[in-house]
Amino acid sequence: MVKTMAELCAQLDDIRIAAERISKCANKTPILRCSALDQILGAEIYFKCENFQKVGAFKFRGACNAIMGLSEGELKRGVATHSSGNHAAALALAAKLAGSTAHIVMPNNSPGVKKAAVQNYGATITFCEPTLEARESTLAGVLEEEGRVMIHPYNDPRIIAGQGTAALELIEKVKEVDVVMVPIGGGGLLSGTSIIVSESLPSAEVIGVEPDGADDAFRSLETGKIQPSINPQTIADGLLTSLGDLTFAVIQNRCSSIVTVSEEAIVEAMRMVWERMKIVIEPSAAVPVAALLEKRSEIPGNRVGIIISGGNVDLERLPWLK
Amino acid sequence: MVKTMAELCAQLDDIRIAAERISKCANKTPILRCSALDQILGAEIYFKCENFQKVGAFKFRGACNAIMGLSEGELKRGVATHSSGNHAAALALAAKLAGSTAHIVMPNNSPGVKKAAVQNYGATITFCEPTLEARESTLAGVLEEEGRVMIHPYNDPRIIAGQGTAALELIEKVKEVDVVMVPIGGGGLLSGTSIIVSESLPSAEVIGVEPDGADDAFRSLETGKIQPSINPQTIADGLLTSLGDLTFAVIQNRCSSIVTVSEEAIVEAMRMVWERMKIVIEPSAAVPVAALLEKRSEIPGNRVGIIISGGNVDLERLPWLK
Repeated sequence: MVKTMAELCAQLDDIRIAAERISKCANKTPILRCSALDQILGAEIYFKCENFQKVGAFKFRGACNAIMGLSEGELKRGVATHSSGNHAAALALAAKLAGSTAHIVMPNNSPGVKKAAVQNYGATITFCEPTLEARESTLAGVLEEEGRVMIHPYNDPRIIAGQGTAALELIEKVKEVDVVMVPIGGGGLLSGTSIIVSESLPSAEVIGVEPDGADDAFRSLETGKIQPSINPQTIADGLLTSLGDLTFAVIQNRCSSIVTVSEEAIVEAMRMVWERMKIVIEPSAAVPVAALLEKRSEIPGNRVGIIISGGNVDLERLPWLK
Repeated sequence: MVKTMAELCAQLDDIRIAAERISKCANKTPILRCSALDQILGAEIYFKCENFQKVGAFKFRGACNAIMGLSEGELKRGVATHSSGNHAAALALAAKLAGSTAHIVMPNNSPGVKKAAVQNYGATITFCEPTLEARESTLAGVLEEEGRVMIHPYNDPRIIAGQGTAALELIEKVKEVDVVMVPIGGGGLLSGTSIIVSESLPSAEVIGVEPDGADDAFRSLETGKIQPSINPQTIADGLLTSLGDLTFAVIQNRCSSIVTVSEEAIVEAMRMVWERMKIVIEPSAAVPVAALLEKRSEIPGNRVGIIISGGNVDLERLPWLK
């Protein structure tokens, strides 16, 4: 019998196994609160700080889970992927820690700080044009030539299971929340979060948030068909990609809704978190906070969990400095 | 019998009482670690994050302790102080929470973000020239005219006891450290830290760190006499003041040593903490980190506690942006 897409994806048990598997490598990141932000945004907010994760982003969870499941032979062949930044750094570090090697295809418009991180972890980089086609064809060339194992940045059950461990830790610690909010790029984080929350805290909603200028996930759910992200316009450089067939299937089945936010709200939310909470977050991580700022009425309940997806920012180029 | 200066200052018990007294108002701030910084700086570092404290700085502890010890009549009269910023905001908020009022004398070169905070907490502000004389004479005028209770920013046993609660929480949690490092301005934080560490963890050293361009505490200890801070030149805007007679007495008796650091090291340390730890710290808070960067050989042992004093920075004017 052919499995459905949703069945092919990570299930609850896969996330629990991933949590156990990555526990020696990944940080159990703190959950911070901020009374000033609670007051301004009108909610009781629990921030799961994946900006404090290794490589500065939740992506290390998925990469680590994928790599730690490889055989000796696969580790020897090494891994490869395409990524605009955080998955690239995560895979590079996870490969290094496992004694393997990584080759990363990066769009040439990736932020300098993310390029530097990948280099620092000792991975090989090939740059390409910033389109999905260029990324995929360049990666295909690398795979053919070097025989590496492909680790997709999000459309992979091992990655989805790994990303789900952040929300697992959040609800294990906070117990009761009314809603969990995460940003959507390719949908790996939203898929993992949707699985764990819908299974272990079914009373809570899961809301994905994306920029108005990169609203392909919103349009995909509206039309019931994956919509490509064509020429997305947003400062949230981690949210430029389209959904994959696996992440789309999970999100269709398990995510409560998608909310979109303006660029102004993203920058305002980012600055507000820096100023009030005193933590460094990247634009993509500010996107769910922006939803509380701009569309509070679309967010149900009062106890809100937010996964702060990452903190990799070029400190020379802050969006509020013109 | 006349009490000595050291006896007039807060003792161990005063710090324990302060911890109990402020427990309902002040945040028990997290202690964060960062493997990247441990590696770069060659130590096992425990960061006590007072940038996450109310008003974004440890100063709330002292102000809160002082205000909560006032009588009904004193609270009705209100409080007053002079401060370049964080003590001002701390006193303003503590007064507001206690149903009292605050009048703050601020030097006119205080950072905009700190002026705004004081205003937001509803305090009255009078600006003066940025000299100790102008600050003291302006405050004397306010006290005479309004009959308020003076709460000195550091040369006050209640303030010293309150500031000591940060190190108390640090050593209660971490148990064993070889050294605790804090920045020195007027010496309130260093005094409170020195008292609690020398009494409850006598095997550990306490090191105060200050900028080369504001090394009055270093010179004071060298000469055995309080040296005024005349025209200090440093980006660390919280460390411009001179020691008081109480803080000088405590530091002479209980602090292990004073280390000074260059402006370059302060900016590099600040940026490193933002980039690697993903937390926002102000220049004064980067000063002890700069000591690990620039003068590692003068810091004994391997397990280092650092009190991150605050995170109030004007995000429009970062020191690495020219």
